[in-house]
Amino acid sequence: MNRFQEIREEAYRANMQLPELGLVLFTFGNASAVDHAEKVFAIKPSGVPYADLSPDNMVIVDFEGKTVEGDLNPSSDTLTHAVLYREWPALGGIVHTHSTYGTAWAQAQRDIPIMGTTHADHLTTDIPCAPPMADEMIKGNYELETGHQIISEFHKRQLSPTEVEMVLIGNHAPFTWGKSATKAVYNSAVLEECAKMAYLALMINPHAPRLKRALIQKHFERKHGPHSYYGQ
Amino acid sequence: MNRFQEIREEAYRANMQLPELGLVLFTFGNASAVDHAEKVFAIKPSGVPYADLSPDNMVIVDFEGKTVEGDLNPSSDTLTHAVLYREWPALGGIVHTHSTYGTAWAQAQRDIPIMGTTHADHLTTDIPCAPPMADEMIKGNYELETGHQIISEFHKRQLSPTEVEMVLIGNHAPFTWGKSATKAVYNSAVLEECAKMAYLALMINPHAPRLKRALIQKHFERKHGPHSYYGQ
Amino acid sequence: MNRFQEIREEAYRANMQLPELGLVLFTFGNASAVDHAEKVFAIKPSGVPYADLSPDNMVIVDFEGKTVEGDLNPSSDTLTHAVLYREWPALGGIVHTHSTYGTAWAQAQRDIPIMGTTHADHLTTDIPCAPPMADEMIKGNYELETGHQIISEFHKRQLSPTEVEMVLIGNHAPFTWGKSATKAVYNSAVLEECAKMAYLALMINPHAPRLKRALIQKHFERKHGPHSYYGQ
Amino acid sequence: MNRFQEIREEAYRANMQLPELGLVLFTFGNASAVDHAEKVFAIKPSGVPYADLSPDNMVIVDFEGKTVEGDLNPSSDTLTHAVLYREWPALGGIVHTHSTYGTAWAQAQRDIPIMGTTHADHLTTDIPCAPPMADEMIKGNYELETGHQIISEFHKRQLSPTEVEMVLIGNHAPFTWGKSATKAVYNSAVLEECAKMAYLALMINPHAPRLKRALIQKHFERKHGPHSYYGQ
Repeated sequence: MNRFQEIREEAYRANMQLPELGLVLFTFGNASAVDHAEKVFAIKPSGVPYADLSPDNMVIVDFEGKTVEGDLNPSSDTLTHAVLYREWPALGGIVHTHSTYGTAWAQAQRDIPIMGTTHADHLTTDIPCAPPMADEMIKGNYELETGHQIISEFHKRQLSPTEVEMVLIGNHAPFTWGKSATKAVYNSAVLEECAKMAYLALMINPHAPRLKRALIQKHFERKHGPHSYYGQ
Repeated sequence: MNRFQEIREEAYRANMQLPELGLVLFTFGNASAVDHAEKVFAIKPSGVPYADLSPDNMVIVDFEGKTVEGDLNPSSDTLTHAVLYREWPALGGIVHTHSTYGTAWAQAQRDIPIMGTTHADHLTTDIPCAPPMADEMIKGNYELETGHQIISEFHKRQLSPTEVEMVLIGNHAPFTWGKSATKAVYNSAVLEECAKMAYLALMINPHAPRLKRALIQKHFERKHGPHSYYGQ
Repeated sequence: MNRFQEIREEAYRANMQLPELGLVLFTFGNASAVDHAEKVFAIKPSGVPYADLSPDNMVIVDFEGKTVEGDLNPSSDTLTHAVLYREWPALGGIVHTHSTYGTAWAQAQRDIPIMGTTHADHLTTDIPCAPPMADEMIKGNYELETGHQIISEFHKRQLSPTEVEMVLIGNHAPFTWGKSATKAVYNSAVLEECAKMAYLALMINPHAPRLKRALIQKHFERKHGPHSYYGQ
Repeated sequence: MNRFQEIREEAYRANMQLPELGLVLFTFGNASAVDHAEKVFAIKPSGVPYADLSPDNMVIVDFEGKTVEGDLNPSSDTLTHAVLYREWPALGGIVHTHSTYGTAWAQAQRDIPIMGTTHADHLTTDIPCAPPMADEMIKGNYELETGHQIISEFHKRQLSPTEVEMVLIGNHAPFTWGKSATKAVYNSAVLEECAKMAYLALMINPHAPRLKRALIQKHFERKHGPHSYYGQ
């Protein structure tokens, strides 16, 4: 048994969930799972259809983005994953999609406002939209800089990546993460649903207010607080 | 055979219909079925995926929200169900979802206006949106107070829960009910469809009028009046 | 073999296509197939789920709406079908749905404008929206009057039911027809798609013009004119 | 084995993908695959349901639109395909659909603006919308002139058909192409997704800017430039 078998299988399962949940068209997305002890992660090979994936063809990559094991090229977004794992050791998995509503908000260059309890069940703030990157960053090491853009936006807004597990890159698309790759996929689906609900709510009532503080706190805490009572 | 077998099976079947009808993402919803003679109801266990449900793992709860039978935690919304069953003995089943269009109207803090016969086939009024709860209610016994908010909104508007079997909680999402859990699920799907149709109609024509009285009466009565002639 | 076997089977197949094409929720729709020689038609029984239908439980009804054969109540919309068959002998089948986008235009009380060739492939005019019926008509024999409303709207606009095989009833929903029940179902799907495309086009560009005359003629004639060259 | 077996099979597979990808309703679309050496292409027979297609009933047509092999009438859009293959020898396959969002932009007579990296991954310009054709062209050889309209629009805008593999015909619908029929189908799905995302982005923020030049270049080049690093 391969020593990276566990992250291979987790990354494989997470990637396979993306088309099942309607979050990707063709190969427009990728998921990875990390082994922080070994400082490597398993990620989808670039441009390979989901139907052809298996745990065996996941690519094992180190935190500099160098391939450790595997014959295929890793996802073109590999360096973004690498930066986030390196900087944020709490992350167990990362997902990138171009899901329709999330991407539309990114193209609109707008944070997804927190307008309901569906959103507050998962995070207490708007889903941040980082501005499009500066031209020098784009022309330089683009995917590495995408990771830097995410981290610098979180610093600027004083957000914690364990409390806010999702971001939009302006004009690009969502990235999500979590303590596991499965949780990161879950967060991608949550982002897409919140993106759609916020869109519709603002079309119905352009003056609809953001969710009030007491409801934000209550819903987040019943799922995530020290006295949470959701789940088993 | 378990003495609560009937409500276990009804609650199970109702919960399983929610993902089939596209009304829930992941575990964002729950259904219950009541036994008014025994003053208990069967409800979905909290946070358990639909694929793992069975009649056996439905949780049996009394009208104070205390577990009577079952090893799993009941839905975190259990106290809302309990209050509604206690106050409204005509209810046989209750469903809570975060269905997309219904939730968008809740986030917009707007009643869903009665604009067509699809709506009038089921109720003669707008689908009421109760205002977001007061901060004290939220910080107190939140789910219990959610039940109170629904009942007090019905009192304020002089609505009958046997005539209007659905409500939105502002900034939160829909609750529906009916003489059985199956009927409550049906009402959740009806609410979602009416929510979508009203949204689209107002986008096409922001000045579209509400349905006129004669059509409201006719459509409701042909399905529900003393001389109804719909169905077998 | 039953002497109405042919229309029973055609009506059955047409009804079964409605959920397959996503045109109905629950039992919100019905299809019928006519035998003009016998002056009867086969129609869906009222309120029966599609999964429980069979050719045998289609109800055979005459042009006054009286049941000729069958133990179940026919669709509550039976008299509308009866009026249309009686007045328009060219009709072989009729379908009524509450399909989402078509119904939204009916609720908006707007004709669906002819904005593209998809629409012109099927008819050369806007899809007419008859105004909501007068109160006396609604309080009288409602379903019969619904048929009259359709026919009188076609007279008023000088439309031919063999050229325009679809209509919206204001605040209610679409009716479609054709030389067979299968064609009527096809027209229901066409109406829904044209309704969605016109909605989206007007959201993108509220000043988008209607299709110009030369394109209307060309597309309609290549499918339906004396020198048509579409199909086999 | 038939000497046109290869293009028959490629055209068949491409046509079958159209309903699988949700790009066509009924028979509203067609795909073809070309053999430039033989100056013929295989195309869908007109009006035949997708379920009845096989490699054997694809129609083999020459670049004047004359049937070379096959008993069925070729697609009514055959001459448009013929013109494009004749003028643009780099094309291996062509697809025409009436996909919902793409067609809505065509009906709105608007180019689909390049607003995000999903779009820039595939082309560096807006997706052009050719104006509706002049009346003389419509009344003349309509499908032939549709091909001319596409080519003349590309000349006018100085676009290359190998860089921009898609177009809208105003008031009509999309055409896409590629080095193979499979690639042309892929481009139809990409166009539909970009059409939906641009629509939603502009509804969220009517003032959202087009994508900036550095991002356009970067995304296109990482997939298609001399130093591309997407895929295997």
